[in-house]
Amino acid sequence: MTTYFPNVDKIQYEGKLTANPFAFRHYNADEIVMGKSMKEHLRFAVAYWHTMTQDGSDPFGNPTNIRTWEAETPMATAKNRVEAFFEILTKLGVEYFCFHDIDIAPEGDSLEEFFANIDEITDLIKEKMDETGIKLLWNTANMFSDPRFNNGAASSNNAEVFAYAAAQVKKGLDISKKLGGQNYVFWGGREGYESLLNTDMKFEQDNIARLFKMAIAYGEKIGHKPQFLIEPKPKEPSKHQYDFDAATTMAFIQKYGLEGDFKLNLEANHATLAGHTFEHELNVARCYDALGSIDANQGDTLLGWDTDEFPTNIYDTTLAMYEILENGGIAPGGINFDSKVRRSSFEMDDLLLAHIAGMDTFARGLKAAAALKEDRFFDELKEKRYATYQEGIGAKIVADKEDLETLTDYALQHDDVKLESSHLEMVKSRLNDYLV
Amino acid sequence: MTTYFPNVDKIQYEGKLTANPFAFRHYNADEIVMGKSMKEHLRFAVAYWHTMTQDGSDPFGNPTNIRTWEAETPMATAKNRVEAFFEILTKLGVEYFCFHDIDIAPEGDSLEEFFANIDEITDLIKEKMDETGIKLLWNTANMFSDPRFNNGAASSNNAEVFAYAAAQVKKGLDISKKLGGQNYVFWGGREGYESLLNTDMKFEQDNIARLFKMAIAYGEKIGHKPQFLIEPKPKEPSKHQYDFDAATTMAFIQKYGLEGDFKLNLEANHATLAGHTFEHELNVARCYDALGSIDANQGDTLLGWDTDEFPTNIYDTTLAMYEILENGGIAPGGINFDSKVRRSSFEMDDLLLAHIAGMDTFARGLKAAAALKEDRFFDELKEKRYATYQEGIGAKIVADKEDLETLTDYALQHDDVKLESSHLEMVKSRLNDYLV
Amino acid sequence: MTTYFPNVDKIQYEGKLTANPFAFRHYNADEIVMGKSMKEHLRFAVAYWHTMTQDGSDPFGNPTNIRTWEAETPMATAKNRVEAFFEILTKLGVEYFCFHDIDIAPEGDSLEEFFANIDEITDLIKEKMDETGIKLLWNTANMFSDPRFNNGAASSNNAEVFAYAAAQVKKGLDISKKLGGQNYVFWGGREGYESLLNTDMKFEQDNIARLFKMAIAYGEKIGHKPQFLIEPKPKEPSKHQYDFDAATTMAFIQKYGLEGDFKLNLEANHATLAGHTFEHELNVARCYDALGSIDANQGDTLLGWDTDEFPTNIYDTTLAMYEILENGGIAPGGINFDSKVRRSSFEMDDLLLAHIAGMDTFARGLKAAAALKEDRFFDELKEKRYATYQEGIGAKIVADKEDLETLTDYALQHDDVKLESSHLEMVKSRLNDYLV
Amino acid sequence: MTTYFPNVDKIQYEGKLTANPFAFRHYNADEIVMGKSMKEHLRFAVAYWHTMTQDGSDPFGNPTNIRTWEAETPMATAKNRVEAFFEILTKLGVEYFCFHDIDIAPEGDSLEEFFANIDEITDLIKEKMDETGIKLLWNTANMFSDPRFNNGAASSNNAEVFAYAAAQVKKGLDISKKLGGQNYVFWGGREGYESLLNTDMKFEQDNIARLFKMAIAYGEKIGHKPQFLIEPKPKEPSKHQYDFDAATTMAFIQKYGLEGDFKLNLEANHATLAGHTFEHELNVARCYDALGSIDANQGDTLLGWDTDEFPTNIYDTTLAMYEILENGGIAPGGINFDSKVRRSSFEMDDLLLAHIAGMDTFARGLKAAAALKEDRFFDELKEKRYATYQEGIGAKIVADKEDLETLTDYALQHDDVKLESSHLEMVKSRLNDYLV
Repeated sequence: MTTYFPNVDKIQYEGKLTANPFAFRHYNADEIVMGKSMKEHLRFAVAYWHTMTQDGSDPFGNPTNIRTWEAETPMATAKNRVEAFFEILTKLGVEYFCFHDIDIAPEGDSLEEFFANIDEITDLIKEKMDETGIKLLWNTANMFSDPRFNNGAASSNNAEVFAYAAAQVKKGLDISKKLGGQNYVFWGGREGYESLLNTDMKFEQDNIARLFKMAIAYGEKIGHKPQFLIEPKPKEPSKHQYDFDAATTMAFIQKYGLEGDFKLNLEANHATLAGHTFEHELNVARCYDALGSIDANQGDTLLGWDTDEFPTNIYDTTLAMYEILENGGIAPGGINFDSKVRRSSFEMDDLLLAHIAGMDTFARGLKAAAALKEDRFFDELKEKRYATYQEGIGAKIVADKEDLETLTDYALQHDDVKLESSHLEMVKSRLNDYLV
Repeated sequence: MTTYFPNVDKIQYEGKLTANPFAFRHYNADEIVMGKSMKEHLRFAVAYWHTMTQDGSDPFGNPTNIRTWEAETPMATAKNRVEAFFEILTKLGVEYFCFHDIDIAPEGDSLEEFFANIDEITDLIKEKMDETGIKLLWNTANMFSDPRFNNGAASSNNAEVFAYAAAQVKKGLDISKKLGGQNYVFWGGREGYESLLNTDMKFEQDNIARLFKMAIAYGEKIGHKPQFLIEPKPKEPSKHQYDFDAATTMAFIQKYGLEGDFKLNLEANHATLAGHTFEHELNVARCYDALGSIDANQGDTLLGWDTDEFPTNIYDTTLAMYEILENGGIAPGGINFDSKVRRSSFEMDDLLLAHIAGMDTFARGLKAAAALKEDRFFDELKEKRYATYQEGIGAKIVADKEDLETLTDYALQHDDVKLESSHLEMVKSRLNDYLV
Repeated sequence: MTTYFPNVDKIQYEGKLTANPFAFRHYNADEIVMGKSMKEHLRFAVAYWHTMTQDGSDPFGNPTNIRTWEAETPMATAKNRVEAFFEILTKLGVEYFCFHDIDIAPEGDSLEEFFANIDEITDLIKEKMDETGIKLLWNTANMFSDPRFNNGAASSNNAEVFAYAAAQVKKGLDISKKLGGQNYVFWGGREGYESLLNTDMKFEQDNIARLFKMAIAYGEKIGHKPQFLIEPKPKEPSKHQYDFDAATTMAFIQKYGLEGDFKLNLEANHATLAGHTFEHELNVARCYDALGSIDANQGDTLLGWDTDEFPTNIYDTTLAMYEILENGGIAPGGINFDSKVRRSSFEMDDLLLAHIAGMDTFARGLKAAAALKEDRFFDELKEKRYATYQEGIGAKIVADKEDLETLTDYALQHDDVKLESSHLEMVKSRLNDYLV
Repeated sequence: MTTYFPNVDKIQYEGKLTANPFAFRHYNADEIVMGKSMKEHLRFAVAYWHTMTQDGSDPFGNPTNIRTWEAETPMATAKNRVEAFFEILTKLGVEYFCFHDIDIAPEGDSLEEFFANIDEITDLIKEKMDETGIKLLWNTANMFSDPRFNNGAASSNNAEVFAYAAAQVKKGLDISKKLGGQNYVFWGGREGYESLLNTDMKFEQDNIARLFKMAIAYGEKIGHKPQFLIEPKPKEPSKHQYDFDAATTMAFIQKYGLEGDFKLNLEANHATLAGHTFEHELNVARCYDALGSIDANQGDTLLGWDTDEFPTNIYDTTLAMYEILENGGIAPGGINFDSKVRRSSFEMDDLLLAHIAGMDTFARGLKAAAALKEDRFFDELKEKRYATYQEGIGAKIVADKEDLETLTDYALQHDDVKLESSHLEMVKSRLNDYLV
């Protein structure tokens, strides 16, 4: 049997003292943390696009990545990629994966040919899934790379583009059913505008909602309803994207009555591009009961574009995992590495090394978050801080038993309010003690 | 009678060739533009805080402004300010004004004293209003400057602070009724967080909604319901503010069922701090039928804080006025100069010169927007651009007569979509021809 | 003879009322402004890369541009491009051009083949230059796109990459001599770092200086010394680029003693990415007597990457042209359109329309700047503002006749300093009157 | 004897398991790390301004801080502050401090009175220094808060302001001599511009250099030459500040020939405002042999202003301390906490708690950096990475024995360059193992 990583066996947990770069130092799949195994908590997924089709090019540079699966024809390459991908999943011990339609199969010369290619490759993928027990976290349709999507897909000014997009979504749901997909994602990279001068924003958003409702209806018709997820991103490639951030997307979801069917797929780097921390976005989603899944990566807050780096910052993963613990877990969503190796990490083995780095960093985050939870670090902080709402006037406010007049009476009698110090510097310093 | 600007008479329109700095070069109040006078279109308001109480200090500097209304006691100063303020309004020919409670009256030593001061000063203001015909565009309560609001007002962790805020809102609505206020604004400068580590975001937002509902109920009770407005701002003073931008605020408004009573008061500088253009924010508000009023100023996109400069950029005012024309006007809202003179423009006369600059810049914008509208510049651009939705498959999509299956059939037959060029560079260059 | 723009003749100046999109509305090449023709002031250049080789792709999208010069082999395409390029230059009436080595000739399979291709194509270019009188503003070597430049060219960690880069620079100077290039540019897109963790910043900068000194020496040897220019950019593609902005580059130039041979090529979009206005960068260069040439484009200050839009903002071009007038002109540099059509402006004709937009916008800027200069708008403002340095203590300070002790004596006697208001709002509003 | 912190004794090192908030968990002053005690490495200083005079106000809020040293007159308060300040220094075990002239003494009604106040308070400070052995790391003159400095100090458009600033600098150097100050800092918060429209940038920078040369001359005259330091900051309060960042400041220093006397005082939050990491700025300074001292704090890269938070991020302190170790230490500079308590940490004790947090975070950083150094983590990475410059063509390049022609010959023979992967993801993940 072909192997693409001949020098590497299945990655094992060896603890933090190991000198073996092809070992986990923190991720120990079956280790129990707060009553569940790490792998149940973390539900890692590998992203087909970054891992199998990203070539290392950037706006100023040509491809750098060495990839040994390139073959003579697009279909032959596509088939090699399936082999290689499942080897990566298996060697990493990752149980989920995610893909866009064009990641797995060549588009060919017609939509018909594209669909035929998808059928053929998904047969192969299904075989591999059956063989390994690996599952589909989510799939999606790439409705942003082809020139036809220059002005959007569902939000395109051209109705034929809408139709084309609809066909891709239908196919996406068909293969989701075929492969038992647990979620289905919409990321609208071109659902936005380059210039407001020539854009009818309301009309375009109406049309996006139309496509989403068609997807819901079709899912019902075929008896396969994955959790639908919208992935916010503020900009890039478009100057402005309609699903700017979690809150903006919730405004849209509510406006069009999609709350029952749609949740959010949140990405760390998209959060920072929108001016938020990742934990903020997760928390917003939780406020709306809409935390669906996450795209794990990290950006560089001193850069203004999506760098999609593998997560290595333990503050970020700790606070993200804390939100996930508070959410009662992320299932049926998962933690998908929407991360790409740096252009200078161009060797095949870097695909494994980078995922090991990301998985270890999330494992550190999980352990730290669990320790915070078990010590009731945040719980106590907040209980004490909001204590005035547990009794007296506070309890009555929360019980909706006060109004402006009764509160005015109260305030006139109690206008010398005393706050307590937050001791925020001490709190932040103490947080460091939980990072492992 | 006292005058604070002895050398300046009522500002007149003298046309763009005048050498008189105390004249309008573009704003001609009674000139008819698209069937309405400029003053009806523009509904300018002067902001009490920047004009009367801003002292020129900044985080690294002491006050610089020379203000001749300072007197021996806070109440004497407050009374002088009323005189001076109406002199400014009258000399500028501005018919509306806006204020926070603490702008007009000293807080004194107790809430009771504060309310008594407000009563006394608003009597004076009412007299002046009756005398001049000048109207109250909106008032609001300052619930962010006092130390008690360190952690928010309605979103404070301390229930007594909530009560205090409620009392200020009640008083705000009482004086709104007394003065015939057309709108009532909530800007939540501390309704957000300094650190997510000690914050219960959902609880805090629930409480904000509680206060808003109490305000609606009280307005109904006293038979005075101004248009309620929320003013979004992403950050500053708080690290994160809940009303981040127009879309975020619409998510909140929908979540808590406030659509019937609340619209948005949008500020140019807050838009850019949130990563948006001002016209974007106005357009978002229009999508939700929620464009209430605007705070006219401009920021510096190379700086990360609220500079609140007087508007002088004709691109911005043209595109803002275009949105307002599209909205059918801004009433009962208006264009409030939430703008402050630069620290180096510290003389009394700068208050007039700066408003003249802002009013002229908006007048330029109105004239340019009207020309764009009359030439159907944008209308034709968009009609042509979205033409495919007027017939055939596009018309059926918009009529909700298609589904994923019918569209797939269509797309399989029509997969060679051709887009048309946007000629965006030419469009932008042509836009310059409309700027006056 | 082949034409690539069969429907368009030479672009003529038709004035601002023309309805012809293929006409200048403001740029009138031979019109005299302040004693020189517009074309002498503006010295426009077309950039080979954006105009001839940019394909409309972006990090999330495939090529969109329709380009009719594509042929069966890279060399045949390269030859067609020369024809098309000179047709564009001629039809636009632009007299200068700029290119990277890889823009004009295919790299082939070896450095030797690349050089042979360059020789062949530059023969063709020379013919065209002789035929048309069009001149080479500057050329440069692309030392950032090939994977070998992953970690930089002169700053690469690999000495063989340094050697390769040196060979490209030598060839660049050889063809500069052959074509009579007036300037030679270095833009270090990869001369910086992806991560400081593995970078020896000092060593890398020493090596960059080494290459520059070799270039100076070689220019002297072959008797052809174009004005050497460094083009600053803060980031993208690298996380940090050493030539961050004008001031940073001047620190480098001084450190390595390159002042006599090197000036700056400044780009508008690079300025804003570094947190500066374009006019700031031009002014900094003038402070160091180092304003060499400019790359004309515009960015979007709400986006964090290089958008390289054609200039359409008349504030920016007015203030840039003002700096150029103050500099006594830009020669031997010029105004090179380092600008690319938007991805949605994908037709051949957009190449002309976009340059017309840019040229008209700079012509507007020139006329406005000349009016400001002739009215002594800024001159009078500044003379008045700094008047205290014309006499008394100010004059003595400037004449270096004071010291801390004498000034202390003075200050103890004159500690009640009074400033004058800047009236900045009025100044900004008046500036609008000069924009045409 | 008066105490301002009656419930807290001298802070002791108790190790990371302590539950005592008034104890160090990591900073152990006399613990030896790489051959030197922690206190010798870290040379901590407390900043008079943030600790003694900061009141918790912000642009939207009134003072919040409770400070028990407020007395009836400004001078009485100033004297209490000296007592309290030395109590803080002593209880923290910090051996250095820093101040602006206006921090320590009231400005009074004239420059003469101000100087007299300074004399009186510095007598008191000197007593305390003699008593405790605490030393002056640096002092500076506040030449930005008073309205006279609206348009700058040395760069003011008004010559009398220059004179006033000169007097403050002279006094600053006099008290530096009196108190044995080891460094003297210039931070030019208003040495920049609000608008380029009315600014002569070159003239203003010439004048700044004039003042610096006067300071050098005066230091020589009085026989006291502290290390002069310039502190870069890109903006705030000014729109643009001339000392934008380390590199910009080095351009200035070189232009005016100040290399022999001036180094840099670098601040973490100023680095990020300029778009750099802190370690980048330290590294740049090292490239120019100009790392003088540091202002320890941290900003929030999602906010656009100077938040001056106490350092709690262990990545930042580790990488900063690594640069300091590489520099052979920071003496005669130090680590000055230019950090202020959050507005919500308003109690007296927070002043101690916050410094403990900052000192512990730097102690963690020192230990991590020492471990990295001892393991040769970065050294080996870089040695391997730049190995090609140790021999062959690389060694000849570095020895300046190659030129463009010889390198072209080499490159034509060796044009198939192979790079090695950076494995950057693995490197970053491994770095986590060093954080304690």
